[in-house]
Amino acid sequence: MKYAVAVDIGATQTRVALGNDEGEILELHVFKTSSFPGPDEYLRHIAGLALSLEKKHGVEVEGIGVGSPGPLDMKKGEVLKSVNMPFDRLPVVSALKSLTGKKVAFANDAVTAAVGEKYWGAGRGLENLVYVTISTGIGAGIYVDGELLLGKHGNAHEVGHVVVDSGEEMTCGCGKKGHWEAYCSGSGIPRYAKFLAARNPELWEKSPLKSREPLTAKDVFDAFREGDALARLVMERVRKFNAYGFAVLVNVYDPEIITVGGSVALNNPDVLLAGLKEEVEKYALNVVPEIRLTPLGDKIGVLGALALGLGLEKKVPLV
Amino acid sequence: MKYAVAVDIGATQTRVALGNDEGEILELHVFKTSSFPGPDEYLRHIAGLALSLEKKHGVEVEGIGVGSPGPLDMKKGEVLKSVNMPFDRLPVVSALKSLTGKKVAFANDAVTAAVGEKYWGAGRGLENLVYVTISTGIGAGIYVDGELLLGKHGNAHEVGHVVVDSGEEMTCGCGKKGHWEAYCSGSGIPRYAKFLAARNPELWEKSPLKSREPLTAKDVFDAFREGDALARLVMERVRKFNAYGFAVLVNVYDPEIITVGGSVALNNPDVLLAGLKEEVEKYALNVVPEIRLTPLGDKIGVLGALALGLGLEKKVPLV
Repeated sequence: MKYAVAVDIGATQTRVALGNDEGEILELHVFKTSSFPGPDEYLRHIAGLALSLEKKHGVEVEGIGVGSPGPLDMKKGEVLKSVNMPFDRLPVVSALKSLTGKKVAFANDAVTAAVGEKYWGAGRGLENLVYVTISTGIGAGIYVDGELLLGKHGNAHEVGHVVVDSGEEMTCGCGKKGHWEAYCSGSGIPRYAKFLAARNPELWEKSPLKSREPLTAKDVFDAFREGDALARLVMERVRKFNAYGFAVLVNVYDPEIITVGGSVALNNPDVLLAGLKEEVEKYALNVVPEIRLTPLGDKIGVLGALALGLGLEKKVPLV
Repeated sequence: MKYAVAVDIGATQTRVALGNDEGEILELHVFKTSSFPGPDEYLRHIAGLALSLEKKHGVEVEGIGVGSPGPLDMKKGEVLKSVNMPFDRLPVVSALKSLTGKKVAFANDAVTAAVGEKYWGAGRGLENLVYVTISTGIGAGIYVDGELLLGKHGNAHEVGHVVVDSGEEMTCGCGKKGHWEAYCSGSGIPRYAKFLAARNPELWEKSPLKSREPLTAKDVFDAFREGDALARLVMERVRKFNAYGFAVLVNVYDPEIITVGGSVALNNPDVLLAGLKEEVEKYALNVVPEIRLTPLGDKIGVLGALALGLGLEKKVPLV
């Protein structure tokens, strides 16, 4: 049996696990990403955990697989500065290699999750798979014809930044207008709700959302379930834009299955996934495949990192 | 030196050529697709040309490469019924194989053109390439990480059918709403011009387009160049929707270059390609690569079919 260390870097939480080549997680540690003074201490903590997990379980690991939110510098193996991450620059590959003496495989978090789906989840045995994450942002990882898509700069999956609103009402975190993520992500939904509230003051006056500060995506979903008219307007638009976005995925990748994860989707499938396939069929030319929640839940990132650490994905090799 | 027969099936014209593995066309025949009583006579004519070209030039060909407008049944090697084609069903592979005794490689026309770009055009030596055709419809062929994208049903390239207009004003030839092709293709532009004319009767009354029946895309481009206000409104929208569409390509495939062909683009680069990259940069997250007309012009389809007939593209093999 082979073993690897899996590292799932998130803006909020980091997960470090030891797993084997049957996709079993033997031990999992979860801690706050922001609870370190700087990137050096953070990476030293991960390296220390990796070595202690290996020693404790009496195994030798093949390598360390790491998934991280972008933007990444794939050549240098670094996480670059972004609005969500607490560190300016995170030299993942060089630090973990020198601190542990192990080989490291490193990829975008949504790509890593797609690897997890392919090797341990609903994508097993399939050649064409799209995994979509709806959380703080919207991202994806894609297999076409059995090959993980990377592209010139390793970014052939920035689906959250396709234009879905030709009215260009909202500006995305990336600074551009009309992007899917600006309306339908965990960060986008509350901002879009406030935008629609300003346009519909009569709905805002009667809405329970008025008393929420800061307003969160969860607040909007809760209000929707309670029948609030403003939240219903928001979700009507969110569902329409999701249909456009998923139709793009169907048209440009022609997948056999689309799985969905990320906290916003995992917590709200009753609102976001119910009837989605039928909505997507209104806008897609290609055959719309099954669209379902990932069976791997919030473990998908760490399971993808495990597959990377085992060296299973040739497009993201251990180096 | 190796030789192959190249067949470029179009709704209007069909091109049949003999070429070699240096990308040279030795002889080219062009004829109207509709000038045959039925599919049998049409395919017999192509097979006869293939055999006579081989005999006349005293060579033995590796095979016959064929590109055709979709929808295709890739398993059966057939062109299915579509609004543009004069035949109901065209059993390309079985007919050409039995009539000539040669092996046949068969693909969608935009995919075939992308193969042409990769082997004989601006894509030589590149791993990540998108070719977009803007003609009666809008289609594409894509290489990511050196691999031609096909997808579950061979349709991982239906970029003309992404939603660009959340107002959903126009219905596409495929029956769905808001698709790029419904606004910006050779068939879409005149229909969109009439739609905008009905909304802007004061512009229509003064427009030279009012006297054109049937109205064509060429009429709209000509009027735009003459300063007509209605045509300017149309082209302002067309350029905006093209920016959205090309930004999708940049975000989902991360290409090193985008080349553009098809009669509408080839005849109107001054309107459609001038300033396009800057417009796309307003909406794309990924690095926007060079966007240029294909250097292969209207020969790109036949050159792609030549590459297929030579067996150069492993994802579309001679069978």
